[in-house]
Amino acid sequence: MSLIQPRTPAGTVELLPREQVIFQHMMDVIRRGYESFGFVPVETPVFEVKDVLLTKSGGETEKQVYFVQSTGALKQGRDPDLALRFDLTVPLARYVAQHERNLAFPFRRYQMQRVYRGERAQRGRSREFYQCDLDVIGKDKLDTAYDAEIPAIIVEIFTELGIKGFTIHFSNRKILLGLLSAWDMEDSEKQKLILREIDKLDKIGPAKVREALIALGLDAEKVDSLLALVALKGSKDDILAALNARDETHPIFLEGRNELTKMVASLRALGVDEARTCINLAIARGLDYYTGTVYETLIDDHHAFGSVCSGGRYENLAGYYTKSKLPGVGMSIGLTRLYEQLAAVDLLPPAPHKIHILITQMDASLAPDYLELAATLRKEGFSVENYLEQSKLDKQLKYADKKNIPLALLIGSRESEAGVVQVKDLVHHAQFEVERGDLVARLYELLKI
Amino acid sequence: MSLIQPRTPAGTVELLPREQVIFQHMMDVIRRGYESFGFVPVETPVFEVKDVLLTKSGGETEKQVYFVQSTGALKQGRDPDLALRFDLTVPLARYVAQHERNLAFPFRRYQMQRVYRGERAQRGRSREFYQCDLDVIGKDKLDTAYDAEIPAIIVEIFTELGIKGFTIHFSNRKILLGLLSAWDMEDSEKQKLILREIDKLDKIGPAKVREALIALGLDAEKVDSLLALVALKGSKDDILAALNARDETHPIFLEGRNELTKMVASLRALGVDEARTCINLAIARGLDYYTGTVYETLIDDHHAFGSVCSGGRYENLAGYYTKSKLPGVGMSIGLTRLYEQLAAVDLLPPAPHKIHILITQMDASLAPDYLELAATLRKEGFSVENYLEQSKLDKQLKYADKKNIPLALLIGSRESEAGVVQVKDLVHHAQFEVERGDLVARLYELLKI
Repeated sequence: MSLIQPRTPAGTVELLPREQVIFQHMMDVIRRGYESFGFVPVETPVFEVKDVLLTKSGGETEKQVYFVQSTGALKQGRDPDLALRFDLTVPLARYVAQHERNLAFPFRRYQMQRVYRGERAQRGRSREFYQCDLDVIGKDKLDTAYDAEIPAIIVEIFTELGIKGFTIHFSNRKILLGLLSAWDMEDSEKQKLILREIDKLDKIGPAKVREALIALGLDAEKVDSLLALVALKGSKDDILAALNARDETHPIFLEGRNELTKMVASLRALGVDEARTCINLAIARGLDYYTGTVYETLIDDHHAFGSVCSGGRYENLAGYYTKSKLPGVGMSIGLTRLYEQLAAVDLLPPAPHKIHILITQMDASLAPDYLELAATLRKEGFSVENYLEQSKLDKQLKYADKKNIPLALLIGSRESEAGVVQVKDLVHHAQFEVERGDLVARLYELLKI
Repeated sequence: MSLIQPRTPAGTVELLPREQVIFQHMMDVIRRGYESFGFVPVETPVFEVKDVLLTKSGGETEKQVYFVQSTGALKQGRDPDLALRFDLTVPLARYVAQHERNLAFPFRRYQMQRVYRGERAQRGRSREFYQCDLDVIGKDKLDTAYDAEIPAIIVEIFTELGIKGFTIHFSNRKILLGLLSAWDMEDSEKQKLILREIDKLDKIGPAKVREALIALGLDAEKVDSLLALVALKGSKDDILAALNARDETHPIFLEGRNELTKMVASLRALGVDEARTCINLAIARGLDYYTGTVYETLIDDHHAFGSVCSGGRYENLAGYYTKSKLPGVGMSIGLTRLYEQLAAVDLLPPAPHKIHILITQMDASLAPDYLELAATLRKEGFSVENYLEQSKLDKQLKYADKKNIPLALLIGSRESEAGVVQVKDLVHHAQFEVERGDLVARLYELLKI
């Protein structure tokens, strides 16, 4: 029989166990962080009915969708009626509309699942990746206080993940939109185009953005005023002061400024480290979807990563599915991408010791004792593995090391008779003898669990 | 704009948040159980390259596969080159073959992901469901001691899940295969057919199985001997004694009996509750895949559920992908199905209180204090939600109740000035005043976390 080459599809990520343990640890930290702020989990099916998923038909999205059909349907040459989700926002909208009567509003939900993009295979383009979404959805209304809570949660989580030097940049789209409106640039399509150009500042620089804005019909003086505004750097108070110093009266601008001011106050009440957030009026987010607060998260020493956690406030989540007005605010961690980026610059958190102890097999006749000891130690809360093959001790210790197990227990006939255990500390390369009666206490001490 | 009806595809399960919390709790218990025995997590992409997935082409499996293709490929009328995994065994085989050089053997891995079956929409047929697989894979060899450890882990987990009255039935296929071989019924195809008939005993009863076995060429006397054997009930020691009392000499039978005897001893050494496992020689498992030990798990009062956790020993995991010999043993919990079955008979574990405390909003002017208190309590390890909308207290308490939050904190201007907090216990319908300084200690006491 000829062998089939075992391989994964292009654009997917598959981790070795030691890496998967780190990834899982990151998922656990994120989950705990979300839950500690009162968010509840939601999971949705990987595929949705096609017309439910592709409400915004004909757009960019549809080009990137994976369609799904069973063998039977394929043979009949039918059009597929299912498609894999391409984000977690559309499933959230569908979920909230579908289950509206059974949900508690404001609905705080998190969802951590994989999403799919039917991209052509290109270097670095992912076809499958985890997103970890966090959203609060209001019924009819949603207080702007939530806009501060969302990034506060992300700050907690990124800190817990040990990610050094990250900053959540935030702004409020109403500030720029208000300015444009004040300048009689009221056409919302044009406003979107202008915001999209501003969004490119980091990539193409102010000179090119300036050109583009003039081409869009803004006069040079206003363009310069706009570019000066979005280039503002400084503390939150400095930027708020600069906004207050402007002689603006347009209600949308004022609304944006008020929301931004309130957000700064709420972040402080929540005790969020001042250094972890900043106002950056250049954050416009390409998506028209966002209507107020917008967020991007940058790793300070690695701006090339782009934003690793973005989001914002939206006016109505599920207009395609329900007449209810459902405003919301949320952020999303692109975890697969973040993991890969951190791995590339060696900034991943260390792999936790998921398995604490390997009980080696020194003497096959003692096998039942090894099993009993493992059961006893598990009852004490340790993760314990029995090595059940007859192998040289050296091989067993290498196995423990490869699995990132910090401690190995060695019990031969001598130790068994003397009621002692040899404890081998594989992290600190030490070995010592411990009385059986002291073993549990000693293990707690060594493992600090 | 006309609305699109929000709905999930037939054959998928989507849970409300309170249910999802229970499901997540079950996942956590399973994960912790697997890890406590030294198993490491693996995740694989939801789709595999078609020829990698469908090695056993032309069989039942292919009919049930979901194929995946991007918009571009679909438009070009190309055959799909990706398909969704239909179990976690084929991905495991592919994973081990692909990463063989980087894995520590015996390779203990668990995998908890969804699998897909392109079934026709029928009542109760699932198209998407979770499997929670547990396997140990050896390189060239794998000690039979692992055969006892696998069900020991499942016993721990099911007990921790609070599932009352379950029994893991196990046998060893070599016993029946050895008998058949001793009777000159050596044709392995015929042996498989005979085992498949025996596997139907529960469904069609012994009379029909007897007929079928005679039709397969076994004489009546042997059929009766076989049926008497698989009908044996009693303690493990009784059944082992009955097997020992038989005057059998075929080496395959003897091997099976030895393995079964060793397994019983290992289960005892592992301290597995005697009542949670039994020998049941009628367990044959339809799959030819299994070559030795086989397991099925029944809920005692609900045999109609069928086996909720099955598995066994196999001789070679990944023969399609590698020349390495990779024997293994494993079990799999069909979690989505188990969840639904337990829910139907009201046997689910209770929903854990994931969110401990709701801080209500009694007085909008105190909002910053509420946020600060929440941050303080989170630092103490509590999951705390701030209600950030201005609503009537009654509405806020109903919200807490709907979210299964056990405690609400009420702080109005009076409490704020007096340095006290009203604690409302929503589970026991009690309310009491607590000094701010005593709050944390009191909350620990109330929540027992």
